[in-house]
Amino acid sequence: MNRFVQAAFLAATLASIAAATPAWAQFAKPEEAVEYRQSALTLIGNHMKRIKAQLDNSKPNLDVIRNSAALLETLKTLPFEAFTEGTGDIGETAAKPEIWTDRDTFDKRAKEMQEKVAALNAAARTGDIGAIRTAFGETGKACKNCHDDFRKKK
Amino acid sequence: MNRFVQAAFLAATLASIAAATPAWAQFAKPEEAVEYRQSALTLIGNHMKRIKAQLDNSKPNLDVIRNSAALLETLKTLPFEAFTEGTGDIGETAAKPEIWTDRDTFDKRAKEMQEKVAALNAAARTGDIGAIRTAFGETGKACKNCHDDFRKKK
Repeated sequence: MNRFVQAAFLAATLASIAAATPAWAQFAKPEEAVEYRQSALTLIGNHMKRIKAQLDNSKPNLDVIRNSAALLETLKTLPFEAFTEGTGDIGETAAKPEIWTDRDTFDKRAKEMQEKVAALNAAARTGDIGAIRTAFGETGKACKNCHDDFRKKK
Repeated sequence: MNRFVQAAFLAATLASIAAATPAWAQFAKPEEAVEYRQSALTLIGNHMKRIKAQLDNSKPNLDVIRNSAALLETLKTLPFEAFTEGTGDIGETAAKPEIWTDRDTFDKRAKEMQEKVAALNAAARTGDIGAIRTAFGETGKACKNCHDDFRKKK
């Protein structure tokens, strides 16, 4: 076998390994991907609620808002690591098949949410409650837009 | 009613409100506290596994380790916001009653884990795989110590 043929064999072998490796491979099982994204979304939802509780209060606690906004900034990409191929119909997922059949829209919605969270965190840093309120409203809309299209109704 | 009596009434009223407010009040329902701590622990467990996968690899990816270690540093206090009074026997919790009957030990275990995670993150920053391996082992032990005493067997 000459070097060229060896290289071709190696490339073919690597390609078949890649094809055989499921997309959720960073998780031991597809169930773990589902659990991971649900966990990240639970924390995100909880910290959105904590910010809302402050904005609904006549004297919002800015430290609480800043803490939750910074955490949202850290968490915002985590769910999207785990909407991988092969995890669409696993356990008690509320994920709609459209996540995988209309991936471009789903990715766009994810990006919109992440941009709104960045703006919310930036507003929280300034401490301007009016700006925080606006940015929070837009973040909430970005959550809802994605849920409307891609989350099964409860 | 003179001012002194008014003030005493006010103080008594405030005290009764405080007594009537459950410790999980930062969550809308005790179930949310359970879900919150389970979610945080799921993410922590997942990122411990990601670091382990790199350390088990002959060529550990330092970026993956650093990313997960930094995330663990952010997540390490989150579960402990949610082991509040009144959330001990809710839904499918694996929390043992000892969390509430031997709170000092539980808090000590939580603090140990948090210190080990800080050391793991510091080691990850240096990039010294040997130091990361040691710090990771100690973090894993801290997780296990707490689970052994305070988590129900599956």
